[in-house]
Amino acid sequence: MTDPAPSPLHVEILATGDELLTGQIVDTNSVWLMDRLWDLGVMARRKTLVADDREDLAAALRETTSRSDLVVMSGGLGPTEDDLTAEVVAAAMGVPLELHEPSLEAIRERFRKLGREMTPNNAKQARFPRGATVIPNRFGTAPGLLVRLGRGELVALPGVPVEYRGLSEEFVLPRVAARVGATPAFRLVKLFAVPESHADQAMRPIMDDPANRGVRFGYRAHWPEIHVKWAAAPASAGATGGSAAPSAELHADRILAQVRGIFGDAIFAEGKDELAPLVVEQLTRRGERVALAESCTGGLVAELLTRVPGASKVFDLGVVAYADEVKSGVVGVAAGLLAAHGAVSEPVARALAEWIRRAGGATWGIGITGIAGPSGGTPEKPVGTVYVALAGPSGTEVVHRVWRGDRDRVRKTTAYEALDLLRRATRG
Amino acid sequence: MTDPAPSPLHVEILATGDELLTGQIVDTNSVWLMDRLWDLGVMARRKTLVADDREDLAAALRETTSRSDLVVMSGGLGPTEDDLTAEVVAAAMGVPLELHEPSLEAIRERFRKLGREMTPNNAKQARFPRGATVIPNRFGTAPGLLVRLGRGELVALPGVPVEYRGLSEEFVLPRVAARVGATPAFRLVKLFAVPESHADQAMRPIMDDPANRGVRFGYRAHWPEIHVKWAAAPASAGATGGSAAPSAELHADRILAQVRGIFGDAIFAEGKDELAPLVVEQLTRRGERVALAESCTGGLVAELLTRVPGASKVFDLGVVAYADEVKSGVVGVAAGLLAAHGAVSEPVARALAEWIRRAGGATWGIGITGIAGPSGGTPEKPVGTVYVALAGPSGTEVVHRVWRGDRDRVRKTTAYEALDLLRRATRG
Repeated sequence: MTDPAPSPLHVEILATGDELLTGQIVDTNSVWLMDRLWDLGVMARRKTLVADDREDLAAALRETTSRSDLVVMSGGLGPTEDDLTAEVVAAAMGVPLELHEPSLEAIRERFRKLGREMTPNNAKQARFPRGATVIPNRFGTAPGLLVRLGRGELVALPGVPVEYRGLSEEFVLPRVAARVGATPAFRLVKLFAVPESHADQAMRPIMDDPANRGVRFGYRAHWPEIHVKWAAAPASAGATGGSAAPSAELHADRILAQVRGIFGDAIFAEGKDELAPLVVEQLTRRGERVALAESCTGGLVAELLTRVPGASKVFDLGVVAYADEVKSGVVGVAAGLLAAHGAVSEPVARALAEWIRRAGGATWGIGITGIAGPSGGTPEKPVGTVYVALAGPSGTEVVHRVWRGDRDRVRKTTAYEALDLLRRATRG
Repeated sequence: MTDPAPSPLHVEILATGDELLTGQIVDTNSVWLMDRLWDLGVMARRKTLVADDREDLAAALRETTSRSDLVVMSGGLGPTEDDLTAEVVAAAMGVPLELHEPSLEAIRERFRKLGREMTPNNAKQARFPRGATVIPNRFGTAPGLLVRLGRGELVALPGVPVEYRGLSEEFVLPRVAARVGATPAFRLVKLFAVPESHADQAMRPIMDDPANRGVRFGYRAHWPEIHVKWAAAPASAGATGGSAAPSAELHADRILAQVRGIFGDAIFAEGKDELAPLVVEQLTRRGERVALAESCTGGLVAELLTRVPGASKVFDLGVVAYADEVKSGVVGVAAGLLAAHGAVSEPVARALAEWIRRAGGATWGIGITGIAGPSGGTPEKPVGTVYVALAGPSGTEVVHRVWRGDRDRVRKTTAYEALDLLRRATRG
């Protein structure tokens, strides 16, 4: 579904580190940066991972800088012998390394503050190729550097994620934004449990609309979340019958209105919002609380809620009732209900939700029962069968689903469903 | 800590796909393959991601195959216009594409079985450069291909993870193993909550032992798990005072004995074992069950346990008591205890564990209380303070820790600590 127009800027990403080539560390930095570049309308042209080897690194530098307007490099700025970046960049430029006094002082100061001793190795981190622009690093020890090399510029950043991202936000991305001109207007909606092929089909008319030519659309699927995003460049606003082209922001918003019309309640969040924090926020605003009685989700709903700082304001009590004896013993589900309907049934989900709401003295009670698999399914109630009940001030709502997929997927989708029911009941 | 001797084989990884360069999809395939190659004693020399662009792809093919004994490529074998791999490989070889009848028949058969109609596009997936070896794909539609190109061989695999991994296991890895000769003996131990720098320091004498020269050591840190692994190549067995070099397996085991001696109980698993499944397995074997009363972990222990298929045999009841009122109301912790010691205290953790053990009629009861942060800390009980209690047939054990790190890290480490206590109490 990506429809990347040729990027206005040839950007490549280069990362160095043996640990990246032995599968020990996943280079999430680059993925993060590519995502952020894409938001600016720039698709990275190539990404290269190369070992901490002088010759390999020199070759990769030569190749990437000979093709690119900008190479964003990471790694190799540490204090150890393996850290070759400054040295190899200097060699490629044909200049010596020079000590950068302000950086040395900053590194000294950092160690003083941490109460740790600075080793001679750390002084290495203050040596840069002559002529390089030093990028101060308030997130860590190693400054970054910027040089002209080959066809364009090379920026080298430390590989530590918080430093890489911090310096990218402060230095690299604004630089890219300035060079590509106006930033596209960017929108993102998050859908719950919509298969990607359905989302694609539903989006087709919008994507194929000539008025949206030049708008870049994209998906990202982390089941049960599907993110649909688009970026409208200022110059991309399509023909609208001879009238003036709308601004990028208006254009992106016009598409947002269409997307809302298509997906409606399947949109659980827009922009940076996330489901569990949104639910905690809504409940906090209303001064309400929720109590949970989970079976097949095994504590996952409680876990998702309590990940959110401040969850204690809206959540007191959760029970994971994994066995039938527990449901009718500790938990107040009548044994007769279990016998008549089975543990995985609408009445039992309802009873769980209503009991935990009373037991927890909460505004809302959630009851979940289901068969996550891999075993336990029957022809009438296959693996994936779940009942999610939400008991509230004006009654109890029960949702019945049969989800496809493995144990993890069934559990995760069901936990999301429970939170999403609560989100819809408590918005506004 | 990686100490990669130059690989006997120059292997590069090349992946194509716009979605990989816009941050929409993380190329986990390559990470997986690099990890598996490393186990064979081969560190990939470089990894390149390139867009679905004819020219870029052709350039990347030329560069990688001119340096490598083997290039493992993925992506671009699908049925759409964007899928350029076969075409670009053929152009690089200077040969035409030819229809491969057995592959066409296999694709037809696959669609018949799925009850779906085969589109003309799918026939494209049966066209290969003349002279290519076709790699049948029993995991999906698109066969892979092997050709001689440049300095060595190029293998192209589909990018769908199950297909990529299946064909790698069946075709690529055995081929690499055959070319590097005997496979190293590989061992892995998993440590709980050992800082990487401590692990490194503790491993130093083993790594610096001349007898272990040529053994490759590596770490992987997913806090609170730290994995330490090593691979002893048959030829790498060091000098042992003139006696015959031990075989690689014996050599790896000798190191294992030393590593066990160093880390002792901090090793929670070896090889492919994982903590929660191990605990479920041990409890199942003993016919015992556990009940959980969690506070600051908010259901995470229950969640980790119930992720494991078959957890219902060993787990019935969990309670998440997030508020003090709940601890003394629903949960049977005497209000006096809370008043005297505070909710985050040794006596309350103990009371939680002993109460839930009785309430759940279980062999083991776990009680957890702590301050996950970001708020709620005091000078005496800072954020990260936790008490984990395990009540069992012969009494109650309480562990007190102050973990550093953010909310997620404190919660996760504490949940692991609880499971690890149970693991140690139920082994053997």
